[in-house]
Amino acid sequence: MAGNIFGNVFRLTTFGESHGPALGGVIDGCPAGISIDIEAVQAELNRRKPGQSAIVTQRKEPDTVEFFSGIFEGQTTGTPIGFAIHNTNQKSKDYNHIKDSFRPSHADYVYDQKYGVRDYRGGGRSSARETASRVVAGAIAKQFLKDIKINAFVSAVGSIKVDGDYTALDFSQIESNPVRCPDPAKAEEMESYIKKIRKEGDTVGGVVSCVIQNVPIGLGEPVFDKLHAALGSAMLSINAVKGFEYGSGFDGAKMTGSQHNDLYNQDGTTKTNYSGGIQGGISNGMAIYFNVAFKPVATIMQTQETLNNKGEFVDMQGKGRHDPCVVPRAVPIVEAMAALVLADFMLLKRLNNNQL
Amino acid sequence: MAGNIFGNVFRLTTFGESHGPALGGVIDGCPAGISIDIEAVQAELNRRKPGQSAIVTQRKEPDTVEFFSGIFEGQTTGTPIGFAIHNTNQKSKDYNHIKDSFRPSHADYVYDQKYGVRDYRGGGRSSARETASRVVAGAIAKQFLKDIKINAFVSAVGSIKVDGDYTALDFSQIESNPVRCPDPAKAEEMESYIKKIRKEGDTVGGVVSCVIQNVPIGLGEPVFDKLHAALGSAMLSINAVKGFEYGSGFDGAKMTGSQHNDLYNQDGTTKTNYSGGIQGGISNGMAIYFNVAFKPVATIMQTQETLNNKGEFVDMQGKGRHDPCVVPRAVPIVEAMAALVLADFMLLKRLNNNQL
Amino acid sequence: MAGNIFGNVFRLTTFGESHGPALGGVIDGCPAGISIDIEAVQAELNRRKPGQSAIVTQRKEPDTVEFFSGIFEGQTTGTPIGFAIHNTNQKSKDYNHIKDSFRPSHADYVYDQKYGVRDYRGGGRSSARETASRVVAGAIAKQFLKDIKINAFVSAVGSIKVDGDYTALDFSQIESNPVRCPDPAKAEEMESYIKKIRKEGDTVGGVVSCVIQNVPIGLGEPVFDKLHAALGSAMLSINAVKGFEYGSGFDGAKMTGSQHNDLYNQDGTTKTNYSGGIQGGISNGMAIYFNVAFKPVATIMQTQETLNNKGEFVDMQGKGRHDPCVVPRAVPIVEAMAALVLADFMLLKRLNNNQL
Amino acid sequence: MAGNIFGNVFRLTTFGESHGPALGGVIDGCPAGISIDIEAVQAELNRRKPGQSAIVTQRKEPDTVEFFSGIFEGQTTGTPIGFAIHNTNQKSKDYNHIKDSFRPSHADYVYDQKYGVRDYRGGGRSSARETASRVVAGAIAKQFLKDIKINAFVSAVGSIKVDGDYTALDFSQIESNPVRCPDPAKAEEMESYIKKIRKEGDTVGGVVSCVIQNVPIGLGEPVFDKLHAALGSAMLSINAVKGFEYGSGFDGAKMTGSQHNDLYNQDGTTKTNYSGGIQGGISNGMAIYFNVAFKPVATIMQTQETLNNKGEFVDMQGKGRHDPCVVPRAVPIVEAMAALVLADFMLLKRLNNNQL
Repeated sequence: MAGNIFGNVFRLTTFGESHGPALGGVIDGCPAGISIDIEAVQAELNRRKPGQSAIVTQRKEPDTVEFFSGIFEGQTTGTPIGFAIHNTNQKSKDYNHIKDSFRPSHADYVYDQKYGVRDYRGGGRSSARETASRVVAGAIAKQFLKDIKINAFVSAVGSIKVDGDYTALDFSQIESNPVRCPDPAKAEEMESYIKKIRKEGDTVGGVVSCVIQNVPIGLGEPVFDKLHAALGSAMLSINAVKGFEYGSGFDGAKMTGSQHNDLYNQDGTTKTNYSGGIQGGISNGMAIYFNVAFKPVATIMQTQETLNNKGEFVDMQGKGRHDPCVVPRAVPIVEAMAALVLADFMLLKRLNNNQL
Repeated sequence: MAGNIFGNVFRLTTFGESHGPALGGVIDGCPAGISIDIEAVQAELNRRKPGQSAIVTQRKEPDTVEFFSGIFEGQTTGTPIGFAIHNTNQKSKDYNHIKDSFRPSHADYVYDQKYGVRDYRGGGRSSARETASRVVAGAIAKQFLKDIKINAFVSAVGSIKVDGDYTALDFSQIESNPVRCPDPAKAEEMESYIKKIRKEGDTVGGVVSCVIQNVPIGLGEPVFDKLHAALGSAMLSINAVKGFEYGSGFDGAKMTGSQHNDLYNQDGTTKTNYSGGIQGGISNGMAIYFNVAFKPVATIMQTQETLNNKGEFVDMQGKGRHDPCVVPRAVPIVEAMAALVLADFMLLKRLNNNQL
Repeated sequence: MAGNIFGNVFRLTTFGESHGPALGGVIDGCPAGISIDIEAVQAELNRRKPGQSAIVTQRKEPDTVEFFSGIFEGQTTGTPIGFAIHNTNQKSKDYNHIKDSFRPSHADYVYDQKYGVRDYRGGGRSSARETASRVVAGAIAKQFLKDIKINAFVSAVGSIKVDGDYTALDFSQIESNPVRCPDPAKAEEMESYIKKIRKEGDTVGGVVSCVIQNVPIGLGEPVFDKLHAALGSAMLSINAVKGFEYGSGFDGAKMTGSQHNDLYNQDGTTKTNYSGGIQGGISNGMAIYFNVAFKPVATIMQTQETLNNKGEFVDMQGKGRHDPCVVPRAVPIVEAMAALVLADFMLLKRLNNNQL
Repeated sequence: MAGNIFGNVFRLTTFGESHGPALGGVIDGCPAGISIDIEAVQAELNRRKPGQSAIVTQRKEPDTVEFFSGIFEGQTTGTPIGFAIHNTNQKSKDYNHIKDSFRPSHADYVYDQKYGVRDYRGGGRSSARETASRVVAGAIAKQFLKDIKINAFVSAVGSIKVDGDYTALDFSQIESNPVRCPDPAKAEEMESYIKKIRKEGDTVGGVVSCVIQNVPIGLGEPVFDKLHAALGSAMLSINAVKGFEYGSGFDGAKMTGSQHNDLYNQDGTTKTNYSGGIQGGISNGMAIYFNVAFKPVATIMQTQETLNNKGEFVDMQGKGRHDPCVVPRAVPIVEAMAALVLADFMLLKRLNNNQL
């Protein structure tokens, strides 16, 4: 109930502050008998880690995951999978300036009001560093999901947007550029823009899109746990996310029923896919696709007026090492959360009927 | 886990199919000692019910709620509140045409695939009629929340949109027109458009916006149960919803940090409110506002080609009595779900620290 | 969290006070495709109902269950099963004497302290009448469990005890006498004793035992949700229960390992069954058996000194119609709770490994 | 759902196998602002650890707890508390004999059947070593509970029993002897008996009793989460437990209502306490007391015939270092589980009414 447990039956509990001894988590409910490739897990973590390219934060953290339990001779055993990532490169002194002051549009103020105490170093629990645990768990989930393909990518940075719909994109291009955009021309444009923004000491928002293919029919639990409601909640729980839409999304609100209805092919697939692979909250076998909006990172390298905990105005300038644009590193996080949701609902589906 | 229980500690379990004997639910976790105005509950239900104006479905259902437990001498007792709404006006024969066929962009096909059996009458459990139970529970939640004001309204129908931001709107105008739009000129335009669309046997989508005022600081549970993640999930669980954004939303993704950061006033409020009243997943005391996108109703009064359960193409024309545009009746549903989320998080906040 | 939801994935939510309009519940998570025999459900309810024999309370309540949803054309549909039992024979005036006074060893005082308000009529929510909802849900669970046989019976009334172990008993005798004891001679002795006790205006405790046969291997979730922990919790949640033991139970604490270990037969069954069909919290395919201790009913037809809500001593004499010994009517309740636990764990087992 | 998460709002998730890299857990929901004495946590762990006296296993494990998060400058912050205990003294080769064979009355066989794979070393997840994580979390819970006093102790070893009821015992004597029995004469008798049993290569069961004092009125959630049901489930989840009774327990089943009813004093306390401090599932402010039956440890140093995974009979003799009687080391585990339940219900109580 305190919000650090995710999922219904494939459950992830996470812990850890940005500058404490370690972050990590426990996966409870991963079925036995899944072969685990630890290097593949580490590879996902490397996609998220700081310092991997010129357009992300230059912080250097090895972010090496250590597994404690639940995997024996290369296989899951059905028991909980505990893991940790030790924090090794915390420059806590970078954060003395926020010990008593509240960064604008950060969670400092509300944590103080809610808990009466906060680990201010690097934002503590509110730091996006917390998502490293999600990426580890998501990588395990992906190995359970096997044939289901999850591809996230950057579809917009500021006002620069990828054109056309998801069917026109070449996902093999995603990792070919530091922005993680499948359209190489747009990727270059985005990269230049992010560099310019960083030079100005500013930050910019963007959109991560995600396409999930080879999804079995029948995932999603009516009525409150519709598949897209769970995906939406998962995405909105990622730091800096402001919006979620799937299928036709907000554009669908402008359409008429005669335009929007997806007519069937004889095999049960549909001719169009405005539904985004989900009808009535349940997957219909078509590709699931959705967009996730990220706000610009709140820490900017410009002086801002803010409040301290005595209620006085003080000047604050961003210190530490921060991302000018969060979306390139958010790509593996979006995939991880999607994988956790799908793993959970793949298992829930086993409970639906009595022909099993 | 089967998806019919909502909330963490203020919990609603619902049941009921469109054409079964009754719909209803159980609220477990409503604190004792709350005075309940039953007529106010019924009034909310009346805002949702069919047949209330010329632009909604002409089905006539009295939708009278009956309470079974949990309220004694006008007060909640802390025990579960059971209730039911009997179905009285089911024209089940209207639905014989969908017994063996799957309506396009409806849940018929996926229910069949998921469960192997379905109550086809009126869509069964997948019918939006299910939301009546949510409105009852939301009305109870509102009475618990007291000073917190929740105002939902229609902000777009098709491409017709209310201009300006929420601070410019007069919420007292919402119930003055059948569209439930606070801008009377736009309301008229929307109403005409809906009538035109209905005449064409078509339907249209729209957007419901919601503003929540007088929210205490500190609601929301890091990291997975951020307040906006719970609100998003709640909204996305409503039938026909395709997207959710709060605060700056998808527009925020285009902004820079120096534009988007909300600077503090000396009392802890902020000069702007791009954050939408939530920072790091926790309410900051400013107004919470969000948009919910609804697709056009899938049942249209035009002939469409579709599949039957033998895999043959058949012609289908919408029968029964349906809404040409769902958003006017969705307004009380959005409010109800918002109230359920807030009631839940108001209670969770009691657990946060040890100074209580 | 408020305690009215039972189970992990086969979930029962109950509502209802002894003298309110109705009791009932919602089963969420019952798989689709189970044929439901409504009369069998009613038959279970009849085993629990008052007035069925000379040694139980003479209250007359028809206790007819009405189903609202989730069953269509005789089969479960995978959607929630809502049901209610209307209260028809409440003699609320019988309870005016406890409006302001607290019956000794009843829950009146603690409800008042906990909630600040209470529906005093017939004990309100704390009445064992609440268990009627459990019996309905348990009867549905039994139909899902099919081949698993659950037999509960009275094994002790006061100091009168059935001798020997469960393997010597003829379960077909259980319903042959009003005590529900499979040993006819002991049954008669118990019946006479209960009549004597009633004549004295007193009540007496007893033990209900339960044997579950044909249980698949592998039910139970380590480490906190061991099968016997879930059974224990289920039984201890029944009104008036003071203890639970399974297999060798408290006697096992006196034994040595060389006596107590169950050695294997070649087919994986065991030569003895001190384990009670459960090892390490997981069913091993042998019969599960356990004992449940019930205290004497607190309402006696003798004058007792007690407190009123002004802190004054008052004399109180039991009124209304009460059971002199609760165990005969507790038999179907114990079975129902066992069925609910087993249904839940049968479903959970589907999640354990990836060979499905 | 996979059983490794305990509690409703004060939640413990544990992980770890007997011979893997580490055991540990995450506490989610511990309120902010609690001063934590880490040495007191380690002291509890030392009470549980092997090798502490002549009558327990001579395995030497330092069992040092390492905290990863959730505690900052000596105080809880409201964020999850992650911790681990590294395994340092695993003699895994001691367990090669059980790699392919199933120890009688152990969980080897059922784990194999349930998961299809098992970490056989030291019993893997089914080892009582797992309870170390519970003791850590229980020690944190105790610091939250502060004034509530929880005293567990050994009340029986085999047939040697402490006489009289809990009010006659001197809890300050519990830690004065290696058996942890508050009656020094009985303690000596028990100690000699355990030594004799060990010499015979055998083991013996026993009973741990627990008394909880200074409990506020109002803990416990009707109807399924009665306080004693939660305590019972918690105790039954401990390895080797066969039974749980509270208050009058199984003896209460023999009594009459006129004997058993607890009459009130004028201050709301009761003259007797057969209720065991709980009425209707809710604490009434009197001492809570209960008994927990432990079976004899299944690993004996005698040759037993058993099965291997080819279905052949093989001879097996216990190896490794095991406890001849588990109850002395179970005392801190019983206390820890009691503390976890009480912490959970203390928080749940905050949700009950609206006068807060």
